[in-house]
Amino acid sequence: MVTWFGRRPQRVEVPRLTARGVAQSSVKVDIASLTPDLMHFLGQAAYFELGEFESLARAVATAPNLAAKEGLSAAAGRALSKHHGLITEIRRRGTEPDVAMAPFVPALDHYRAQSQGADWHELLLSCYLTGGLLEDFFVRLSDGLPRDVGPRVAQLLGEDSGTTVLVHELQMAITADSALGSRLAMWGRRLVGDTLLIARSAMPVCEPDVFAESRTEPVFTEIIAAHTRRMDGLGLTA
Amino acid sequence: MVTWFGRRPQRVEVPRLTARGVAQSSVKVDIASLTPDLMHFLGQAAYFELGEFESLARAVATAPNLAAKEGLSAAAGRALSKHHGLITEIRRRGTEPDVAMAPFVPALDHYRAQSQGADWHELLLSCYLTGGLLEDFFVRLSDGLPRDVGPRVAQLLGEDSGTTVLVHELQMAITADSALGSRLAMWGRRLVGDTLLIARSAMPVCEPDVFAESRTEPVFTEIIAAHTRRMDGLGLTA
Repeated sequence: MVTWFGRRPQRVEVPRLTARGVAQSSVKVDIASLTPDLMHFLGQAAYFELGEFESLARAVATAPNLAAKEGLSAAAGRALSKHHGLITEIRRRGTEPDVAMAPFVPALDHYRAQSQGADWHELLLSCYLTGGLLEDFFVRLSDGLPRDVGPRVAQLLGEDSGTTVLVHELQMAITADSALGSRLAMWGRRLVGDTLLIARSAMPVCEPDVFAESRTEPVFTEIIAAHTRRMDGLGLTA
Repeated sequence: MVTWFGRRPQRVEVPRLTARGVAQSSVKVDIASLTPDLMHFLGQAAYFELGEFESLARAVATAPNLAAKEGLSAAAGRALSKHHGLITEIRRRGTEPDVAMAPFVPALDHYRAQSQGADWHELLLSCYLTGGLLEDFFVRLSDGLPRDVGPRVAQLLGEDSGTTVLVHELQMAITADSALGSRLAMWGRRLVGDTLLIARSAMPVCEPDVFAESRTEPVFTEIIAAHTRRMDGLGLTA
């Protein structure tokens, strides 16, 4: 049985900057009490990255031109490499990857199916926004992992995701077609709700409304601020 | 314009062992005269590996269980890494990857569509057989590339493709269902024809029947022998 509370002395520290460069609040957040059991964390993050890879591979297969296909293949490779990095951590602890990931399959498969979008641009926006938000979130949460693994996982998840090509393709398409821009803005707003529910499911169940809880609130404020910057960068209203 | 003939002094040497461990004939084959222009080789091999990646990623997305999904994701990563290795060689020569790959898109996309198969097991067999055959072939052909790139490309393409998981899944399924075995044997025989046509298109156009030509015949004999061993290993009649 996973024990959510009192697993280790609770560290209280100023959150460090993520590799992604997300501005961190200076509010002290006791993240350790929000971080799940290590295998829960690794299994969920690993299966999330595998799904991110699958979505990007689908974007590769349906890309309208070779340059986009080529750029997206590199992004797919980054997601896959993060997945395999997490799998390595799982194996290192003597657990089979499929056993560690299995509990997260139903919810993440459902989430993935919901967030594929109606066309290639919606799919790109999903990969960009959900990958960005959840990687930020997992990096943040990894502060509460044991010190012999947390920093390594944060480094891995914070690595460049190769999303420049996604931003480039989306910006070009939005500039050329304002109706597409409106549709994508709506799609982006819809995605954020579902994505925050996945983030919430990564945390110990402690309060009915984890978003409003004082310990988690600064974390979600940062995560959503970074999401808003991604939307702004595309010229979309978050 | 690509010049097919007389580009460099024709080396005549005993072909070396491939990294894949394919038994090489001791017949001296003047492979240099069969090897296309470097950018033709790199563009075609790179786009082939990208397609192989896409097929494997599709097999990941449609895998019936997590263990297979996980194993296949590693195989997809290998194909992607070969693709990116070839892209690096293309860029090193100042060519944009999409420009180098573009001439091969119609034929390889058509080939890829033809070889997807009717279900997951046919898709796995395609990835295994066509990847094996064409990687063997490109490794063989790379003997005729300039010495500052040929061995590096042979090393890259000859690296383990992570296909153990494909063999494992196919063997289990064939053992459990002999009707599936018969269908896959037929599928394997159908694939080899189309695949050899792709191999043929990698060579300079010199003779109406390149397969029967005395210089190419030992190459194809080896390639087909390795294919037959792969089929045998699955308990299928080639």
